[in-house]
Amino acid sequence: MEATLSPPPLSAFLRRLLPLSLPPLLLASRHLRVSSCAHGSDGDRIVARPSSELRRGIRENSSKVEDEKILSLRRLFSRPDVGIDAYIVPSQDAHQSEYIAECFRRRAYLSGFTGSAGTAVVTKDKAALWTDGRYFLQAEKELSRDWTLMRSGTRGVPTTSEWLNDILPPGARIGIDPFLFSFDAAEELKQEISKKNHKLILLKEFNLVDEIWNDSRPDPPSKPTRVHDIKYAGVDVVSKLSYLRSHLGESGCTAIVVSMLDEVAWLLNMRGSDVPHSPVFYGYLIVEPYRATLFVDTKKVTKEVLNHLTNAGVELKPYESVLAEIESLALKGAKLWLDTSSVNAAIVSVFRSACERYSSQLNNNSTNQSIHHGGPDAVYQVSPVALAKAVKNNAEIEGMKNAHLRDAAALVEFWCWLEKEIENNVALTEVDVADALLEFRQKQEGFIETSFNTISGYGANGAIIHYRPIPGDCSLVENKNLFLLDSGAQYVDGTTDITRTVHFGEPSKRQKECFTRVLQGHIAIDEVIFPERTPGFVLDVLARSSLWKVGLDYRHGTGHGVGAALNVHEGPQSISFRFGNLTALQKGMIVSNEPGYYEDNSFGIRIENLLLVIEANVPNAYGGIEYLGFEKLTFVPIQTKLVELSLMSPGEIKWLNDYHGQVWEKVSPLLNGEALDWLSKNTRPI
Amino acid sequence: MEATLSPPPLSAFLRRLLPLSLPPLLLASRHLRVSSCAHGSDGDRIVARPSSELRRGIRENSSKVEDEKILSLRRLFSRPDVGIDAYIVPSQDAHQSEYIAECFRRRAYLSGFTGSAGTAVVTKDKAALWTDGRYFLQAEKELSRDWTLMRSGTRGVPTTSEWLNDILPPGARIGIDPFLFSFDAAEELKQEISKKNHKLILLKEFNLVDEIWNDSRPDPPSKPTRVHDIKYAGVDVVSKLSYLRSHLGESGCTAIVVSMLDEVAWLLNMRGSDVPHSPVFYGYLIVEPYRATLFVDTKKVTKEVLNHLTNAGVELKPYESVLAEIESLALKGAKLWLDTSSVNAAIVSVFRSACERYSSQLNNNSTNQSIHHGGPDAVYQVSPVALAKAVKNNAEIEGMKNAHLRDAAALVEFWCWLEKEIENNVALTEVDVADALLEFRQKQEGFIETSFNTISGYGANGAIIHYRPIPGDCSLVENKNLFLLDSGAQYVDGTTDITRTVHFGEPSKRQKECFTRVLQGHIAIDEVIFPERTPGFVLDVLARSSLWKVGLDYRHGTGHGVGAALNVHEGPQSISFRFGNLTALQKGMIVSNEPGYYEDNSFGIRIENLLLVIEANVPNAYGGIEYLGFEKLTFVPIQTKLVELSLMSPGEIKWLNDYHGQVWEKVSPLLNGEALDWLSKNTRPI
Repeated sequence: MEATLSPPPLSAFLRRLLPLSLPPLLLASRHLRVSSCAHGSDGDRIVARPSSELRRGIRENSSKVEDEKILSLRRLFSRPDVGIDAYIVPSQDAHQSEYIAECFRRRAYLSGFTGSAGTAVVTKDKAALWTDGRYFLQAEKELSRDWTLMRSGTRGVPTTSEWLNDILPPGARIGIDPFLFSFDAAEELKQEISKKNHKLILLKEFNLVDEIWNDSRPDPPSKPTRVHDIKYAGVDVVSKLSYLRSHLGESGCTAIVVSMLDEVAWLLNMRGSDVPHSPVFYGYLIVEPYRATLFVDTKKVTKEVLNHLTNAGVELKPYESVLAEIESLALKGAKLWLDTSSVNAAIVSVFRSACERYSSQLNNNSTNQSIHHGGPDAVYQVSPVALAKAVKNNAEIEGMKNAHLRDAAALVEFWCWLEKEIENNVALTEVDVADALLEFRQKQEGFIETSFNTISGYGANGAIIHYRPIPGDCSLVENKNLFLLDSGAQYVDGTTDITRTVHFGEPSKRQKECFTRVLQGHIAIDEVIFPERTPGFVLDVLARSSLWKVGLDYRHGTGHGVGAALNVHEGPQSISFRFGNLTALQKGMIVSNEPGYYEDNSFGIRIENLLLVIEANVPNAYGGIEYLGFEKLTFVPIQTKLVELSLMSPGEIKWLNDYHGQVWEKVSPLLNGEALDWLSKNTRPI
Repeated sequence: MEATLSPPPLSAFLRRLLPLSLPPLLLASRHLRVSSCAHGSDGDRIVARPSSELRRGIRENSSKVEDEKILSLRRLFSRPDVGIDAYIVPSQDAHQSEYIAECFRRRAYLSGFTGSAGTAVVTKDKAALWTDGRYFLQAEKELSRDWTLMRSGTRGVPTTSEWLNDILPPGARIGIDPFLFSFDAAEELKQEISKKNHKLILLKEFNLVDEIWNDSRPDPPSKPTRVHDIKYAGVDVVSKLSYLRSHLGESGCTAIVVSMLDEVAWLLNMRGSDVPHSPVFYGYLIVEPYRATLFVDTKKVTKEVLNHLTNAGVELKPYESVLAEIESLALKGAKLWLDTSSVNAAIVSVFRSACERYSSQLNNNSTNQSIHHGGPDAVYQVSPVALAKAVKNNAEIEGMKNAHLRDAAALVEFWCWLEKEIENNVALTEVDVADALLEFRQKQEGFIETSFNTISGYGANGAIIHYRPIPGDCSLVENKNLFLLDSGAQYVDGTTDITRTVHFGEPSKRQKECFTRVLQGHIAIDEVIFPERTPGFVLDVLARSSLWKVGLDYRHGTGHGVGAALNVHEGPQSISFRFGNLTALQKGMIVSNEPGYYEDNSFGIRIENLLLVIEANVPNAYGGIEYLGFEKLTFVPIQTKLVELSLMSPGEIKWLNDYHGQVWEKVSPLLNGEALDWLSKNTRPI
């Protein structure tokens, strides 16, 4: 899956590591950033005419708002317990998840815009929606005329807070649901709007969109959770909690709030089905030296899970009671570890105000003001769970390897089938192809679901980096252009993510050259050996330099972390042209290797394998340190028809032949019949 | 010249771009930095036993201080106009120069330690000297027993301020000469020692070392300056000042203080001979919208230079009067542009106190306190001169190219001569060889001097990255091991810097493999094409990945900027494993390309050419931007005997043969006789 699908909503690890002000994805954003660092320039800010105005002409002049949802929302503004002039509705759930449950898709419900990224803002007389370049066309289609589309990342388009500062009279009250903002994001917003003396109002008792959504709002997810078997998890819950407690001890804290859903699932060796594509469930975990409490809808907890948790000394409390627990921790004088890049503003603000109450009580009770009472306190630092989760243990690695082999078998059967269908001129749309792939995967043992929405892009659609074919409104897959397929699956033992680009007819010289240069970048990353403590961004140039040689490039990162039977995007590591992420690549981490090239309105190319970081077998150890390298997890043929041999070095040709040799060796035992023949044909040395 | 010779004293551009706390050079320092960013750990601080104690045993127990200079310095501490408990003597002059005049080598005079980098601190009962790994042995030899050697960068060794905080009772007064610290460095020191409530005392009226140095102190340099001909400079002084004034205008400032000597020389198209290796002269330049004043010892200004300056509207004032001018600017209400990473603390503090006096005068004279008088003010930002100087114009490029060809001719004659001498078993020391090279260069037109101390290292000495052979105490150059020669020259039209590594006998398999991997890194940098706005550090990995493949690496950067007939080290660009420098490589910049490998106690390898950044000739321009590449300036054969052909790709062999073809084509016309034969033999294709 393309490396930087996540923002926005930025998954929390990206929030931790990237400046929040960065426009997503675009290479241009690197340039803006570098030049703004070097020259301190702010750029000029011109408020662009929103595209909705440009496109809708006369209709826009009508001042009568007809959008019933906007009107309903505004009616709530003046309620005594609300009292706001504007309300911001982001895409997030309370856990900074990349994929969220239907009942939390408030921004989509309110605005009608269903893309994954966007922020809606409603004032007493305006309604605007921000989204990025991936979704401009979709948003224009989906938004009613009462909404103004704000094309984020476009020159002159203000940010949400700039716009609020611009249009509201000073001292306005701007409301948010503090569950839906990380504390850091809420603080940044508060800072920004304070320039115009606006106040940020945290409405934690109710979500205004939920109030107008009302009966039609889907129920919260309630499918049962399950135990993630120790044979896949590798380390039991007691050991993981003990690891976390040792960090707690070192930090001097007495409790930590874990709110990222994949961190909760990883720590507790549990999995769930609350959101699409990620096997997680809604919950918070609070770990103290001698106690651990999972806040979860107890309906989801089967007897097996309950036993599992009880054995690990984990108590259960209702999901909603987390704020009350936070308050009671403060009253007990806890010192709380809060990763404010992921923990939401509701939790942090409740803890802070409880601390204040507690401290003033202490002072009132004390006759001697100079005596210092060690009151409750918080330490704001990055959670240690993300790094621990990123470094896979042997069982997790084993599970990932096995899942990848079954996934490869499904893919070979699929490609074999598709090639024949195209040959027989069967009319298949991009959606048909994605659906068929799902069927092949579903036959594999331990298959659960797709790990993200399949990107099935024929011809020009392949050039849209985050393309998602819509049923009834997508291309046929034919033999006249390149076909890019980026897909992945969740298995009980592992998570996959693979991209292949193929041509069912005769590729052009141009397509072959571009494909070959992308492949050269892929090979360079695959083969690199590097000293321990090297951050991923150091390697990024290796994926690009063959493209750069002829003035080509691609506007996304080269690699993201992948969870073991968990989220397909995880931190803290990455391989990216952005220099912000200083996390070193470490033995046991898994990253994707997915350089690409996209020719607008023409075709797209991406070649993606997942790689495991391993100790390299090198004859020296200069500096007395370890040297690291990669081991491939993905074993599916790369179409050799697209390789321009004259550009390839002997070493690169050897790499390709060796890889195909391994693919045959590892995957052929899982196949038979036509698929086996197809594999044999497609792994022949060139 | 090896890429990171400069720190410490860190040249100002490095100060601007690197965290000051970074230990110099060591790859380990990157790791420290990365890990300290990622984990926020401070490491443990153990004060190590100084090496002087370890080595000197009994003598150290004698408490009687015999070092007359230390005693004399301490006597000054209690003088009424001094009143300090400690005095810090750094290596710097008042302009953050890499090479400084003899009369400013106060730290060397006081301590006896003559290495280029070090800080001496004398308290009422202790004297300590900090230097880095390059100089541990030399410092142990040169320091008297009253000095404690502090091995910077060694685990547990405190920094200067940590040491002062440790050994002095709270509230001590620590004196410095504020001319010898950039304002930023002085501020950092002040912050650090304030933790122990120490006060930083700026003694700007006199330098205490000068007072004890007295009559034996060398006179300040007084050789005449000269005009740098417009045919080499390319742009006249009026245009350069006008460029600077346009920046002044944009920043809203009314004056800028330029204090870096190469910036002054570049702006005024002047050159001098005040310091070794760099054709600069001591001076400050203050540029205002309608005035420019050079503060210089007027004895150095010839009639020709005076005319040149007068024509450009530049006035002269005595060097010493710069502080008075700064005060008078404040009294005129100037808004001063100060680059506090290079401008010294004396200037900044004088301006600040003048501003305060002026503002309080204004307030006293005003009856209405609420009226705002626009008083004097300062803007603290990076000087625009460094970047303008780094981007060479056509005349500068032409001069650099011509100088490099003459330099190449001298080097070919030299290598031809040396090879024959070694063949004939003539006993030559490393110093003899460096001296001979100087003679060959001196014969070239426009030669002025060496651009740095020649690094002439045979065998194990080649593994000492900053080796400098000492007459009477250095190796013979023979045919049994590798010989590394890193040298450069100042010519009237350009500056050179080149390293070659050769073997006059039979290199070992190991040496050939290491040499070939260094060469592969050199070729990878030379051939890379990259999008505009790419910082140099992005390319650094290309120089290392061939070494990394077998677990090898080198502990210095890959490239530094080089001035045009100016300093051999200049900023702001670099190619380094340190990620701090976000300056993009830009068309017209010059960088060195000098990967290496050093096997302790055995041999050293470095291959260095200078490269010009040019627009690359590429068939595409993805993103509508320019793609850049490098053009070689250096044309001297690389010893093919050391190349292990089996490791080289066809492309790399082609690169080497093409390069040697160009060397022959460009340099053969300047040669004849044996040297021409040697060149022919040494540029044959392999």
